[in-house]
This record gives sequence, C-alpha cells and structure tokens, in this order.
Amino acid sequence: MFTRIDHVGIACHDLDATAEFYRRVLGFEVTHEEVNEEQGVREAMLRTNGTDDGAASYIQLLEPIRADSPVARFLARHGEGVHHVAFGTGDVAGAADAIGGRGVRVLGGPRPGSMGSRITFLHPKDCGGVLTELVQSAQQDARTESEPDE
Amino acid sequence: MFTRIDHVGIACHDLDATAEFYRRVLGFEVTHEEVNEEQGVREAMLRTNGTDDGAASYIQLLEPIRADSPVARFLARHGEGVHHVAFGTGDVAGAADAIGGRGVRVLGGPRPGSMGSRITFLHPKDCGGVLTELVQSAQQDARTESEPDE
Repeated sequence: MFTRIDHVGIACHDLDATAEFYRRVLGFEVTHEEVNEEQGVREAMLRTNGTDDGAASYIQLLEPIRADSPVARFLARHGEGVHHVAFGTGDVAGAADAIGGRGVRVLGGPRPGSMGSRITFLHPKDCGGVLTELVQSAQQDARTESEPDE
Repeated sequence: MFTRIDHVGIACHDLDATAEFYRRVLGFEVTHEEVNEEQGVREAMLRTNGTDDGAASYIQLLEPIRADSPVARFLARHGEGVHHVAFGTGDVAGAADAIGGRGVRVLGGPRPGSMGSRITFLHPKDCGGVLTELVQSAQQDARTESEPDE
C-alpha cells in the first residue's frame, strides 16, 4: 500500500533560517518552496534521495503563516521539532478508505499537498503518537492516468 | 555528505503491539529485530523502500529495556511518538567531524547502531528541536573496505 517514506515534516519558527541550517550543516538543498493557504503554512522541500518506487524522499520544513494554523498550535505546545511523518502511495483515497476501515481516524478527504500531491492525515492518537500523512505524488497521479489497469 | 533518510525512530511502550499496528494498518513488515544494550532499547526495523544510494529507508521502533535509557526518559517526558530522524552517509566519522566544526554538538563518537551500522547523534537543541542521527550502514562499510580509493 505504501512504497516509501515520502517526507518528514518539521515545524519551525523561521523557514529561511532552518533551510539555511539544513544546507550549511547537513548539505541538503531546498528543491521546492510554496505556500499552502489551506494548511496555513509556508513550506520548503529538501530532496534527500530517490526511492525505488520512482519517487523521492524529502525533508519538509513548515513555518506557520497564521496563529490559528495547526503548525502554529503545534509550535506553541511543543516547540520546534518533528511534526509528522508521511508515507507515499499510488492511491491516497484507496489507502485512506482501507485504513479508516481498520479503526484509525482519517482526518478529512484527500486535498492538495506539496508539489501537486494529494494528501490526508491519520489521527496521531490512533498511530502511537505519530501524526501520519498519506501522500500520492503528482507523478504518481500522472502515471495512474496514463497507464490504466488492463 | 548525506545520501538518504536512513530511518525515522519512533519511541513506544510496547514494541510488539506497535509493530503489529504498522503491519496491520500501514502494511510495513518487521525486517529485523535486535537489542541494543548500550542504548538500552529493543528495536524493530521495518523496511519501507530502497534508496538510490544502494541502501534503504526504515521505520525504527524503539522500546526501552531499562528505566534510565534515553528512550525511557523520552517516553516519560513526551509520551510515544517520533524520537529521532537518521540520515545515511558513507563516512559517519568524517560527517561527524565536519558537523562538529560547524558549531553543532556531536553526542559521542561513532558506535554500534542497528544491523551492524555505525552511528552518532547531534544535539537536538542545535538542530531545530530534532534529535538527528548520522548512520553509516554495514553495507556502506563493506563497500568502503572492498573498494578503496585509488
């Protein structure tokens, strides 16, 4: 069902300073930046490696753009650190349906994530304290559409 | 310097129950189990994907085996959840030296990690709240030894 660690999401107060830390200290470069108004965050994606499902893994840095966003609330409660872990799938809607049927709360339907992906989340209290994200990348969307099952 | 997300380390109270959750709900199987007496943990590695540096990414589940281990103290303070993020390198000693020279506290010299790897950690207060592990896998050791620089 899931074929990779898609990304690790890290909450920070200052996206530019944190991205510079990852570049200078660990050698990871920002490969994409965007604002997700719905999630209330500015985010940077730092590609760490390619994965054997044809996609890639990333560090995702998240800075809140308003005080009532989930990431702002996380920072107020916990301070900076790991916010969530995301797993990649070719079918986020199907994965969410299957997981919901296993007694885990799915937090809303698939919606836009980073770089044209479709995402949803699982309740951390149902996942051993880990806010777990499900991701279908834009490339996986395109592949699904151009290579239908036969 | 770092060529992959090697693993995400997750602290839990009950390794077997948490591994069963990852199998049943997310479809990830335990591919390795061991006890690390020095770190004071029992751990399970769940391989999520291969990586384009010839290694792989894992979810690492950690259950303390004694009350004074770092993971036991983490659980007492924070409850279950993400404990650390590990990045893979072909030269953990060199990476640690370089990073120490950039003003980040390295927590001890390279020592045994999961599956024959060599590991060390960076202080979370120097890394935006993320306990950051550096990993040189056993395969990377073997490759280095069998293919010396010419």
